[in-house]
Amino acid sequence: MFFETHRDLLQAAVDANQTRSAWTGYTAIAPPECGQAEDIVGSYDGATLCLSVQTPSRITADEVSPYTGKALNVTYSAPSAEEALGGAARAAVALRDADVELRVGVCLEALHRIHLRGREFAAITSHTTGQSLAMACSGSGTNALDRGLEVVAMVWAAMSRVPPEVTWQQTFGTSEVTLRKRFRARPLGTALVIACASFPAWNAYPAILANLATGNPVLVKPHPRSVLATAVAVSVIREVLAEAGLPTDAIQLVVDTVDDPVAARLATDPATRIVDFTGSQSFGTWLERNVDNTLVFTETAGVNTVILDSVRDLPAAMRTLAGGLSLFSGQMCTTPQNIYIPDAGVRTDHGPVSRDDVVAALRSAIDDLAGAPRRAAAVCGALQSEATRQALDALTDRAAADGTLVRRPSAYVHPEYPQARAVTPLLVRVDPRRGDPLPDGEQFGPVAFVIDCADRESAVEHATASVRRHGAISSYLYCTDDAAVDAIADAYADAGASLSANLVSSMPMQYAAAYSDYHVTGLNPAGNATLTDESFVAGRFRMVQDRRQVRG
Amino acid sequence: MFFETHRDLLQAAVDANQTRSAWTGYTAIAPPECGQAEDIVGSYDGATLCLSVQTPSRITADEVSPYTGKALNVTYSAPSAEEALGGAARAAVALRDADVELRVGVCLEALHRIHLRGREFAAITSHTTGQSLAMACSGSGTNALDRGLEVVAMVWAAMSRVPPEVTWQQTFGTSEVTLRKRFRARPLGTALVIACASFPAWNAYPAILANLATGNPVLVKPHPRSVLATAVAVSVIREVLAEAGLPTDAIQLVVDTVDDPVAARLATDPATRIVDFTGSQSFGTWLERNVDNTLVFTETAGVNTVILDSVRDLPAAMRTLAGGLSLFSGQMCTTPQNIYIPDAGVRTDHGPVSRDDVVAALRSAIDDLAGAPRRAAAVCGALQSEATRQALDALTDRAAADGTLVRRPSAYVHPEYPQARAVTPLLVRVDPRRGDPLPDGEQFGPVAFVIDCADRESAVEHATASVRRHGAISSYLYCTDDAAVDAIADAYADAGASLSANLVSSMPMQYAAAYSDYHVTGLNPAGNATLTDESFVAGRFRMVQDRRQVRG
Repeated sequence: MFFETHRDLLQAAVDANQTRSAWTGYTAIAPPECGQAEDIVGSYDGATLCLSVQTPSRITADEVSPYTGKALNVTYSAPSAEEALGGAARAAVALRDADVELRVGVCLEALHRIHLRGREFAAITSHTTGQSLAMACSGSGTNALDRGLEVVAMVWAAMSRVPPEVTWQQTFGTSEVTLRKRFRARPLGTALVIACASFPAWNAYPAILANLATGNPVLVKPHPRSVLATAVAVSVIREVLAEAGLPTDAIQLVVDTVDDPVAARLATDPATRIVDFTGSQSFGTWLERNVDNTLVFTETAGVNTVILDSVRDLPAAMRTLAGGLSLFSGQMCTTPQNIYIPDAGVRTDHGPVSRDDVVAALRSAIDDLAGAPRRAAAVCGALQSEATRQALDALTDRAAADGTLVRRPSAYVHPEYPQARAVTPLLVRVDPRRGDPLPDGEQFGPVAFVIDCADRESAVEHATASVRRHGAISSYLYCTDDAAVDAIADAYADAGASLSANLVSSMPMQYAAAYSDYHVTGLNPAGNATLTDESFVAGRFRMVQDRRQVRG
Repeated sequence: MFFETHRDLLQAAVDANQTRSAWTGYTAIAPPECGQAEDIVGSYDGATLCLSVQTPSRITADEVSPYTGKALNVTYSAPSAEEALGGAARAAVALRDADVELRVGVCLEALHRIHLRGREFAAITSHTTGQSLAMACSGSGTNALDRGLEVVAMVWAAMSRVPPEVTWQQTFGTSEVTLRKRFRARPLGTALVIACASFPAWNAYPAILANLATGNPVLVKPHPRSVLATAVAVSVIREVLAEAGLPTDAIQLVVDTVDDPVAARLATDPATRIVDFTGSQSFGTWLERNVDNTLVFTETAGVNTVILDSVRDLPAAMRTLAGGLSLFSGQMCTTPQNIYIPDAGVRTDHGPVSRDDVVAALRSAIDDLAGAPRRAAAVCGALQSEATRQALDALTDRAAADGTLVRRPSAYVHPEYPQARAVTPLLVRVDPRRGDPLPDGEQFGPVAFVIDCADRESAVEHATASVRRHGAISSYLYCTDDAAVDAIADAYADAGASLSANLVSSMPMQYAAAYSDYHVTGLNPAGNATLTDESFVAGRFRMVQDRRQVRG
């Protein structure tokens, strides 16, 4: 039933994915007013959500709004690893034996219902992750739904490429043998999806839906300080599963605490056959190396680079870059971190601009954004975690002591929430040639390092070495020479990274479009899972066949 | 050039793979006469084949014909792991940067040339593996070529599903942004292919060609006692690579010895990113668990079961089963091992036949085959390894002592080679209900256990438990009730195994057709790699993209 309802949408997604052109399956979500958002979040105050196999254990999660500073005070059922794995095992057969169309239909209907409740999700996302309401409606709203739909379309396409049966005839010696063969897709086993605190939907929806559509029961383990948005998404899916006559425990929420984490225990259980992880590079690497006999998909972090060589319009480029550094306070895996500027400065249509002037223009563009409270609030949002602010303060102090500080990460004045964990980007300027240190990996949050370098070639060399060592999820270049863009794209590709050139527009530079942009190459240390290539989908199901002789 | 030459063949293979109907890309190869085959093998006596990066090291492999007992006396260049990995790394860039059509063309042309030299390959295969010349022309000849072509077609189809570029337009706010995006497939890294002694081509061709077509340089590590057929295949590919202007070291042969194996060292090197292994379950499992950050594809072994419930024509079924047990002296991963017969015997169109009579009929069918030397030679071939004969003798002695021996694995009289390592199947009959032991896993070689069981249900229960514990690559059923076949196929599928029912024909029961039959489900302990599903192909390349703003 659900499948038929959404069949046209599914086909359109398959088509968009094949052309990789711009398309969306979901109308834009209008952000709620601040007061409405608070009311929505407040309606969960004191609630207990049971989104797993029956268990008496409860955890009141440590969720605090980055805007109001108020605890959300939501309690979740908290099954042990054993209970959750047992529940998944009990749900497995019914999910496995359900028709693919039924499972795909459940996925599509769940996306539809999450979209219908888009404002509610945006409110909750904002008050758990710190995303602005606008971003929660797009990045964690329609864009996340599109990435989810994209993966459902890819599962559907992959499964549709195998015929359900064939009558097979071949001559052996003098006799013709006829076999009737059936080909049936089967799931791999219990799947674990580990979501991150600041951007849970965009990565989790694809993993969850890829698993459900292929018939693998799912345990969703959100970050212990950012549970509610994921919990409500899981509740929607459970509701749709029930209406489809499937066991609700085909998806369960598993809640843990910072002090007593359960992810490693779940990931290493022999019953767990698939793990999808978004989070730190250290835990991602641990999973890749320590979880045997299991498909492990990771999206972690890298050091994203920007090379400034030449631009048409410097102020436009600096506005774009300032926006990129500020967007969601640098808490995106696509946020630029290291910005290379050659000794000769940046060439523009109006002549070369010295490096000092470029740095000043960038600082000024950030200041402009930071000084416009309403715009700053919409762009920057708030820091999800107090730990990020502390790390930022420590970096600032060190840069001030080093003499490398260009811009302090001053708080902008949030128009609605004076107590919001609001910051603007820290800018540090270093010259590795004189021994200035660079951090050994990603600095989470709004911090960028302007790196003085000899010329474009040395910038490419340093940046691609950084990709190889630290990984990169997005890389950026400003260069008006198209042949040079080709060559630099080759150099990044050789290092296993994608490249975006000359983005100066109303499109945020780190925007990655479902159906079109590949996110994470799998060819550098920033993770092995690509949203969305066929390897993200193919191994989650396998084929069993039977054949019987009907003649010969 | 090569691509255009073979384009129609490639397209036909893509089509066959989509319909999964019977098709072959290669005309049958006529086996050489025995004398011709010996001449072909003799022409390599004293030869030195250098099929790797330049190295002064040489190994004269311990290859002895299972037919003549004569040493082949072929010497191979033997690069160290470091040398081979270094050579692969040096070849990597040119292979990676070659156009996909060029790489696919090389694969297709290599298959074509191997086919043209089919009789030579058959002669060498026969005198290294023990396969009969007829089987070496089919199972290691056209069938292996077809499995290779199938995987090239799948790589081509997978890569063709991603457009090379798109002009992408989307409105942000009030402005339309236009990006030009390119999508480029990139290989993962150095690939290691470890081939087995008795059936090297069928599994190695797909792995080798999947890697080359996706741009990963390949190290091929044959079994130290079965090198030459693989070596000549590698030499053909190197020859085609050179003609295509690509580095020959994009594929290298790495030869080791039984006493100083190199596979684990190569597999665990950080530069190795893909491993394909055919061989023992123990080393396969070790690879799956110990090789980090690497795609590991395994095809190992399992205990293949046969359930005898009911048949139309008992003699025909017993002839087929006797042929299945005898084919290549049971040295195939698809050979049946455990044969279940219920207490009530087997129902036939002519009434029930008691278990004792069924066992007698099976023994008699094997005796008939064994007693016809020319046919026995064509079917059974010879044992590749003396160790297999010793293990078989030990099992025979134990069964004789236990009172479970039904048929001794007597040597058949080979019409050409009286000194051939020729045997016929050992039959043992056990009843687990009275405590008779069954081996804990696969018994390599021509040995089958007839298992007395209560009824069909208990047979299914015991057999599927065996699949879960030991794995299975092929499973067989004889049952005239189609609804029961469905139910039993479900039970096997639930255990992660495929099922073939009611095979009574000139088609060998373990025949697996390229483009149609999935080989190894990946859902039980017999391995994780399926010939050929999309997961066998998808992860061997990843996508890098670049996008540049052209308007907006």
